[in-house]
Amino acid sequence: MGLFPPEEYTRRQALLAAELAVQEIDLAILTHPPDILYLSGTCQASCLFLPKSGDPLLASRRGAERARAEAAARVKPFRDSAGLAALALRACGTNPRRAALAFDVCRHDQALRWRKLLPEAEIVDCAAVLRSLRQIKSPAEAALIRLAGRQLDGALKTAASLLRLGQSELELCIRIEAYLRRKGHPGLVRIRRPGFESGMGFALAGQSTLPLPETDAICTGPGLSPAVPLGPGDREFRPGEPVLMDYLGSCGGYLADQTRMLSLGPPPAEASWAYEAMRQVLRRIEGRLGPGEEAGAIFQAACREARLLGYEDSFMGGEQAGLRFVGHGLGLELDEPPYLAQGQKTRLAPGMVVAVEPKVVLPGLGVVGIENTYLVTEGGFECLTPATEDWRQVPVD
Amino acid sequence: MGLFPPEEYTRRQALLAAELAVQEIDLAILTHPPDILYLSGTCQASCLFLPKSGDPLLASRRGAERARAEAAARVKPFRDSAGLAALALRACGTNPRRAALAFDVCRHDQALRWRKLLPEAEIVDCAAVLRSLRQIKSPAEAALIRLAGRQLDGALKTAASLLRLGQSELELCIRIEAYLRRKGHPGLVRIRRPGFESGMGFALAGQSTLPLPETDAICTGPGLSPAVPLGPGDREFRPGEPVLMDYLGSCGGYLADQTRMLSLGPPPAEASWAYEAMRQVLRRIEGRLGPGEEAGAIFQAACREARLLGYEDSFMGGEQAGLRFVGHGLGLELDEPPYLAQGQKTRLAPGMVVAVEPKVVLPGLGVVGIENTYLVTEGGFECLTPATEDWRQVPVD
Repeated sequence: MGLFPPEEYTRRQALLAAELAVQEIDLAILTHPPDILYLSGTCQASCLFLPKSGDPLLASRRGAERARAEAAARVKPFRDSAGLAALALRACGTNPRRAALAFDVCRHDQALRWRKLLPEAEIVDCAAVLRSLRQIKSPAEAALIRLAGRQLDGALKTAASLLRLGQSELELCIRIEAYLRRKGHPGLVRIRRPGFESGMGFALAGQSTLPLPETDAICTGPGLSPAVPLGPGDREFRPGEPVLMDYLGSCGGYLADQTRMLSLGPPPAEASWAYEAMRQVLRRIEGRLGPGEEAGAIFQAACREARLLGYEDSFMGGEQAGLRFVGHGLGLELDEPPYLAQGQKTRLAPGMVVAVEPKVVLPGLGVVGIENTYLVTEGGFECLTPATEDWRQVPVD
Repeated sequence: MGLFPPEEYTRRQALLAAELAVQEIDLAILTHPPDILYLSGTCQASCLFLPKSGDPLLASRRGAERARAEAAARVKPFRDSAGLAALALRACGTNPRRAALAFDVCRHDQALRWRKLLPEAEIVDCAAVLRSLRQIKSPAEAALIRLAGRQLDGALKTAASLLRLGQSELELCIRIEAYLRRKGHPGLVRIRRPGFESGMGFALAGQSTLPLPETDAICTGPGLSPAVPLGPGDREFRPGEPVLMDYLGSCGGYLADQTRMLSLGPPPAEASWAYEAMRQVLRRIEGRLGPGEEAGAIFQAACREARLLGYEDSFMGGEQAGLRFVGHGLGLELDEPPYLAQGQKTRLAPGMVVAVEPKVVLPGLGVVGIENTYLVTEGGFECLTPATEDWRQVPVD
């Protein structure tokens, strides 16, 4: 059995099928494991066919035993491309006139192969439909994100109990990773966007949070070499440095995202002020977290609050950084809609989950900020990252 | 600076440019971080343009500071698609008639975008060229894989010193991961093939190595949930169970792959026999590891040896598993050519690095086998995974 009862998957399949019908798409061909997992309950598959009417069919290249045990769908093995195409037709019941792939995750050679396998079908994009469907979390999904959020409370306590003068960032991060793994974190974090990668997170001091990376994150860490520029380097913690702790909890494949600040002894006053300002920005955002609020307007409100507090130039790295966002959806992947970002017209709805992360870049001091993961509810929001927000000062000796 | 001296990157760029010239490709557009890293020394980039003549140009979407510090290429920022297209033309010096993308890693929507940005260019595939270039490792690359191989020696010793009765697979694996991380493993393992994922490895007992997964691996582990079917579950080790330990070392982005067997007390005779047989198959393969040998013929020789030893039906999972390979290249990614697999015509050449992993699936006992990573040399091979091959028996108390 998959993670959830079969009804959960049946409901998701029906919602997608209904949307396919609206768009006159006869068949969705899903090749991306998180999409297949979302719709069927298993990652053990090469391809999931979901017709606009009729039952889904999971095409299994090998090892169908495991897929059958997990999937809320028929599982049929195939040996070669012809066999795969035959299963597509079987799932569809007829030759599809329009078939859909998720263009944002389907590799170009896969798409070209499907053009050949279904020469009479028009191949269209279903990425937006899938992402829109996945952005509304069910209570069962929210429950897993809630558990992932609790992992992060423990991770913060672990970090506060372990942080020591002269300890390397790497050593602290290894111990935080071990803590999270013991709580059920699989060690792997999925990002949908091509070319973006993530570790489990990092606890980094001052200079290690700079310069800004090329991803849409404000910090990813220096990493141990240019080859994998993620997470800690081997720099040692020093007294008073602001330590940015940004980690992803993960439970049953679902992520929660949290940032907190620590330091060995009292931090510089400038960092404390900035942190309190970002907490205030977060409170301002919370005031607008609820059904019907426009994602782009929330970003603008956050910018306005940061400006009033004197952080116009450094909020989210300022103009130079080009990071025109303050929050992002998450679930099975770290970069799901909605985006609390410039110009986003999406209106929040119950079931959406967003990580909200007001941060500033302070020259010479590094990145300072806070982040919580929220579930949008009928009445407003529920915070899914319950760890204390206070700056954790760890005694130097 | 990148990981290697600039000459290393200049040489790679020149080799690729020469191949582009042969294929009459005016411009290669590289979007996949490991490809960009290989050719420029940085992962901090949205796009690397490599013309058949002239210098490469790294187009940076944001945070160019880090890219400039690392890349053996000019770095130019861009703001939008028009700016990106302008940089492509600038790198090429003219409107490209033929431009290439790596179709195996470039997402369909990216490819369609490039068709629009370069409407007069024919867009062709350069995946094979890139993969062929990358399969020959330089001495500097081999040195990093050698270091990654040494991590695995320490990981085996760590596992042997920690394995305990009643300990969970998860707990042992967390400790092995922590060991590897302390030795410089970045925690992340890159796989080129879409939809395939890997953790750092696993130490799994008996039943946990079954059933076969849908990937091209003989074992990936059950994972903690169907959502991430990788690595350990929370099963506890019992006396005499064969423990399959398959881990990836990683240094400077380069991988080494090793499998060894352990057990608490003496293993079942059937498992010991199978292990010795797989060592013999490995020796047989080593006898053919050298320049000029055909990859497919090595696979056939391995199958023949396994058959002579009585493991025809269980070697690499047998016919049912459909795994017609016994080894794979690796480097920055886990699935690089050459493949020691059925029908592969590639001939080994000095500088190729292959992980060779003869394994059998024993019903009721799980997967048993061995794996080393080898560098093909002028005179034959060098084993890059120096850990003792003997089955490690850990006392039960």
